[in-house]
Amino acid sequence: MSTMDLSKLCVHTMTTKPWSLQECCTEYARAGIGHITIWRNVLDDLPLSEAVKMVQDHPLSVTSLCRGGFFPSIDPNKRTDAIDDNKQAIEQAAALGAPLVVLVCGADPGQSLDTSRKQIQDGIAQLLPFAEGHGVKLSIEPLHPMYAGDRSAVNTLAQANDMAEALDSPWVGVAVDVYHLWWDPDLEEEIARCGKHGNLHAFHICDWKTPTEDLLLDRGLMGEGCIPLRAIRDAVLATGFDGPDEVEIFSSRYWEMDQRDYLQKIISAYDAM
Amino acid sequence: MSTMDLSKLCVHTMTTKPWSLQECCTEYARAGIGHITIWRNVLDDLPLSEAVKMVQDHPLSVTSLCRGGFFPSIDPNKRTDAIDDNKQAIEQAAALGAPLVVLVCGADPGQSLDTSRKQIQDGIAQLLPFAEGHGVKLSIEPLHPMYAGDRSAVNTLAQANDMAEALDSPWVGVAVDVYHLWWDPDLEEEIARCGKHGNLHAFHICDWKTPTEDLLLDRGLMGEGCIPLRAIRDAVLATGFDGPDEVEIFSSRYWEMDQRDYLQKIISAYDAM
Repeated sequence: MSTMDLSKLCVHTMTTKPWSLQECCTEYARAGIGHITIWRNVLDDLPLSEAVKMVQDHPLSVTSLCRGGFFPSIDPNKRTDAIDDNKQAIEQAAALGAPLVVLVCGADPGQSLDTSRKQIQDGIAQLLPFAEGHGVKLSIEPLHPMYAGDRSAVNTLAQANDMAEALDSPWVGVAVDVYHLWWDPDLEEEIARCGKHGNLHAFHICDWKTPTEDLLLDRGLMGEGCIPLRAIRDAVLATGFDGPDEVEIFSSRYWEMDQRDYLQKIISAYDAM
Repeated sequence: MSTMDLSKLCVHTMTTKPWSLQECCTEYARAGIGHITIWRNVLDDLPLSEAVKMVQDHPLSVTSLCRGGFFPSIDPNKRTDAIDDNKQAIEQAAALGAPLVVLVCGADPGQSLDTSRKQIQDGIAQLLPFAEGHGVKLSIEPLHPMYAGDRSAVNTLAQANDMAEALDSPWVGVAVDVYHLWWDPDLEEEIARCGKHGNLHAFHICDWKTPTEDLLLDRGLMGEGCIPLRAIRDAVLATGFDGPDEVEIFSSRYWEMDQRDYLQKIISAYDAM
């Protein structure tokens, strides 16, 4: 019997991308993992009621649904479509028992980052009554500056905090991902600020490899890289945050492995953190 | 005859990497470009006196030498070696008539960014008398946060300004590169701050492509990406900066082209900026 404490470990379905939702539920639960974050791609070819039943048939709590967002566009029709898509994400989250939807906020390279940020804030503001009506929170996830071109105009925790505080609703907060934020000299103080305003919704972990060979798909297991994981987790815990540690790794290399072996590597790396 | 104003255009030898220093000098001058930034790799198999003569034989002013830096290491011997290497760079710059050496400051993934930053500042402080003795300035270049792991622990203009101001010497300043800094919400105010303290040494241009396919070697020509080049240049000019616009592009794709054709593309892109 393992002496490891997995009580706060959550795995993102995207971390084990080759697995279906059914496989994720079965394998995570079998490994003693109690929390799951569900990416919407695993819901694509599945009636939502079946997905809900799969999750409920296992001793898994759903930490969040990934992902909504992608608000900005130079095309107003696309901005409207984004609102509709986010409403669908909120409905999915509510059905699955996910207390929050993580937002990858978006950016349009055809307009300024300032304009994209305004459209993000407007989009979230529009969604708030719908989110509240479904009992689902929205979590702004600042993305690494290398994604400012087309994935997110929110690139620091300070910016996410500014936006969450400006929206000033119990239904909006922030998701902190070490991969995106570890380099930021203001990170510790911004984590404290996030917690102080009750805005710290989620904590995502992995590692930054040197060298990193791909902008998207070369994240490392905890301990494989240079992110000061313990220091950042200590700052998160110091706010009173008691949610799970969510392992979110995109890695072509790990997706090529046997996913059960990989899941054991995740557990070992988490235990050694 | 061209109506283009190339009087402020500088090209980095690394931008046309397939060319030797001799070819860079000949081709830049033939194209009407008046400024060159010399990367040290083109000096590798060449007596320094020959390199000096090549440059002096052409109507080219040398904007800077790239690059010194790489101060941090967990190994104290490597930190000492770095000082020696930077002294060599300063000597090369002095011989070539380059008024400044650009510093890619370095980072060691085996230690914290804070520790790396302290070692960077200590390293620059150690070099200052030598730099002053040679009449060569040292320019801290903040690098994009995607290089924080192993290339630079200085990742924002605010950090570079902090360090330059702490060192408080007319022989230390900052190089602003749009590729590294464009995403920063504080960029305009930090450019103004840099200028106000007399610390704005150099201005590097290129563009950020979406998608970017490689962390190092997929920079775009001005206009190919989403960097607000004119707005950033306006902020630079508003400080009173009157140095050249330095085109610094690393691109596997462009290095595969005929370099004369590529140089014409650079000139056209610069003219359209």
